[in-house]
Amino acid sequence: MKVLTVKTKPPYDIIIASGLLETIPTDLKKSFDFGKVAIVTDNQVKTLYGERLLENLQRSGVKADLFSFPEGERSKNIETVVSLSRSLIRAGFDRKDLIIALGGGVVGDIAGFLASIYLRGIPYVQVPTTLLAQVDSSVGGKTGVDLPEGKNLLGTFYQPKKVYIDTEVLSTLPKQEIKNGLAEIVKYACIMKRSLFKYLEKLGSDLYNLPQEPLQFLIYQSCKLKAQVVSKDEREGGLRRVLNYGHTVGHVFESLSNYQIPHGFAVSVGMVVEAKLSELIGVAQEKVSQPLINLLTMLELPHRISHLFSQDIDRSRFFETLFRDKKVWKGKLTLVLLQKIGKFVFYENPLPELINKALEECF
Amino acid sequence: MKVLTVKTKPPYDIIIASGLLETIPTDLKKSFDFGKVAIVTDNQVKTLYGERLLENLQRSGVKADLFSFPEGERSKNIETVVSLSRSLIRAGFDRKDLIIALGGGVVGDIAGFLASIYLRGIPYVQVPTTLLAQVDSSVGGKTGVDLPEGKNLLGTFYQPKKVYIDTEVLSTLPKQEIKNGLAEIVKYACIMKRSLFKYLEKLGSDLYNLPQEPLQFLIYQSCKLKAQVVSKDEREGGLRRVLNYGHTVGHVFESLSNYQIPHGFAVSVGMVVEAKLSELIGVAQEKVSQPLINLLTMLELPHRISHLFSQDIDRSRFFETLFRDKKVWKGKLTLVLLQKIGKFVFYENPLPELINKALEECF
Repeated sequence: MKVLTVKTKPPYDIIIASGLLETIPTDLKKSFDFGKVAIVTDNQVKTLYGERLLENLQRSGVKADLFSFPEGERSKNIETVVSLSRSLIRAGFDRKDLIIALGGGVVGDIAGFLASIYLRGIPYVQVPTTLLAQVDSSVGGKTGVDLPEGKNLLGTFYQPKKVYIDTEVLSTLPKQEIKNGLAEIVKYACIMKRSLFKYLEKLGSDLYNLPQEPLQFLIYQSCKLKAQVVSKDEREGGLRRVLNYGHTVGHVFESLSNYQIPHGFAVSVGMVVEAKLSELIGVAQEKVSQPLINLLTMLELPHRISHLFSQDIDRSRFFETLFRDKKVWKGKLTLVLLQKIGKFVFYENPLPELINKALEECF
Repeated sequence: MKVLTVKTKPPYDIIIASGLLETIPTDLKKSFDFGKVAIVTDNQVKTLYGERLLENLQRSGVKADLFSFPEGERSKNIETVVSLSRSLIRAGFDRKDLIIALGGGVVGDIAGFLASIYLRGIPYVQVPTTLLAQVDSSVGGKTGVDLPEGKNLLGTFYQPKKVYIDTEVLSTLPKQEIKNGLAEIVKYACIMKRSLFKYLEKLGSDLYNLPQEPLQFLIYQSCKLKAQVVSKDEREGGLRRVLNYGHTVGHVFESLSNYQIPHGFAVSVGMVVEAKLSELIGVAQEKVSQPLINLLTMLELPHRISHLFSQDIDRSRFFETLFRDKKVWKGKLTLVLLQKIGKFVFYENPLPELINKALEECF
């Protein structure tokens, strides 16, 4: 078992261990003073783990109820949040009660947003069940839902009381979902931790069959790196933007594909484009794109735009989307580039010609 | 001009003066670094002041836009917030831009909630245009909307960057609206400030025709008292409950009337019932109900239940609603009672027989 304290205001602990779903009821009772528990999850995770967690809670003498909605990004809207709120009100949940967000990123975003606005905020804990949610959304307190106009346009920053990462649940995860998580771990290594990059290179495709101990170490390392960033910048004015590495260009790919490309795939190729750009602009002090491409290849992650799109992408739409991004701040586009593997640098207003050249080289 | 600093995290200033609507553009430019401005208001206030403020902003070289919705509590729902969000997105508003909440309590609640969840939070300032909003909702950062199941069930605590109280706008306010504000000022006097109570007694019905100077003093005093409470308890676990004086019983009256009774009227009679109860229970160390009744009478505010309802009220519904109140904490109903005029005391689980007796005496 590993424990990490995220030093936000207020701070909270992330517990990483195998078999946590069984021990959560005991730990909750020991750690918090609360009334009832509302498990918020999607219909798929409900069947996999939700009903079991509900029984565990009830067997421990905790009054608990389960609320679920159809899985997938299509549920990530305000209507789902309102419908859950109304169910909670009718079931008599109030400010002393507790929400458990059980599921992947979408569930975490919805349940966290719900917790932050229900009766002006009630406590919640997270139980992320995908590798991506475990290494990404379990740190940082971002919650939110989509609008027809775009993703994550309504939301809050709202920290959970605790995060329980049960690594056992990863055994039921489809390989594509593991890939989405690995791409994020590669990102942390690229921007902040050369030794983690070396470790990933050493493991290679063994990453898909890791025993519990190294798996927990990887998740712990990733959460710790993100926590370092987030504790210095809770609301993304400054340092937090470093987490956009691979995502600024990756989001454009996702958008151009109408979000048909898996997130991890878009980020993987995004990282390669931004690594190439680091070399073209000249901020890279060593080869960064080739080691990254080698690692992604070992992990069966894509590294070429042609791995994502069967045809060439429309350049004018690419640049329009890139410059409309939320990450454009006061008219300036700031990219996260690599000085070395494990060391990032912020770079403002890169020349579109150079971005275009990087795209060409990544086809 | 009076300036009050509310020591929340982060702190903000309340400016109280006549004619602020003219000087807001200059002050905003001097005080904040922002892009565009979105005035959020209702259709009525839009005509009265919104269009003028918009012109003032534009004349000062500030890019500004106005977004409005139908006036009244019926707009206070999530649909209004979503519709405003979508309009703001389409108009290109982002995190460096600023929202101005221009209007009464409903506008403040909606615009504040919008600001708190739009792109996970953008800055906003308040320009309250009713006396009640000026002395109540301009301090404390409560935002929210209603659900079909009840009032203010979704919301946030979100502090404005600044509050501009223009006392000139009160001149267009209907007398009923002035009454709603006065009832709240009487509340502050009862629980915390005997000298304010004496001052109100001295002014009597002159309160409806006050010159700017004493009017600003009254608003300043009220905001200061509420700020003292709120800075010690931002999220209403403890001291903040003192603000419920007259409201715990008052809310039951509002609910029993399906919110047809003006808020200030319900609170006025609620205060009298709770003052009577203070005497019946024996926590009052002096006569508290009679001086209160005298003051309310001078201010043309009701002090009897029969002033609110033409028939007797259903006692079982009264008690059911009272004990279902959000203010019932961990199964305990805590009332705010008066030890003296100007000094409150918390009292847990009053006997229903005594509450009933207090009701009888207030018919």
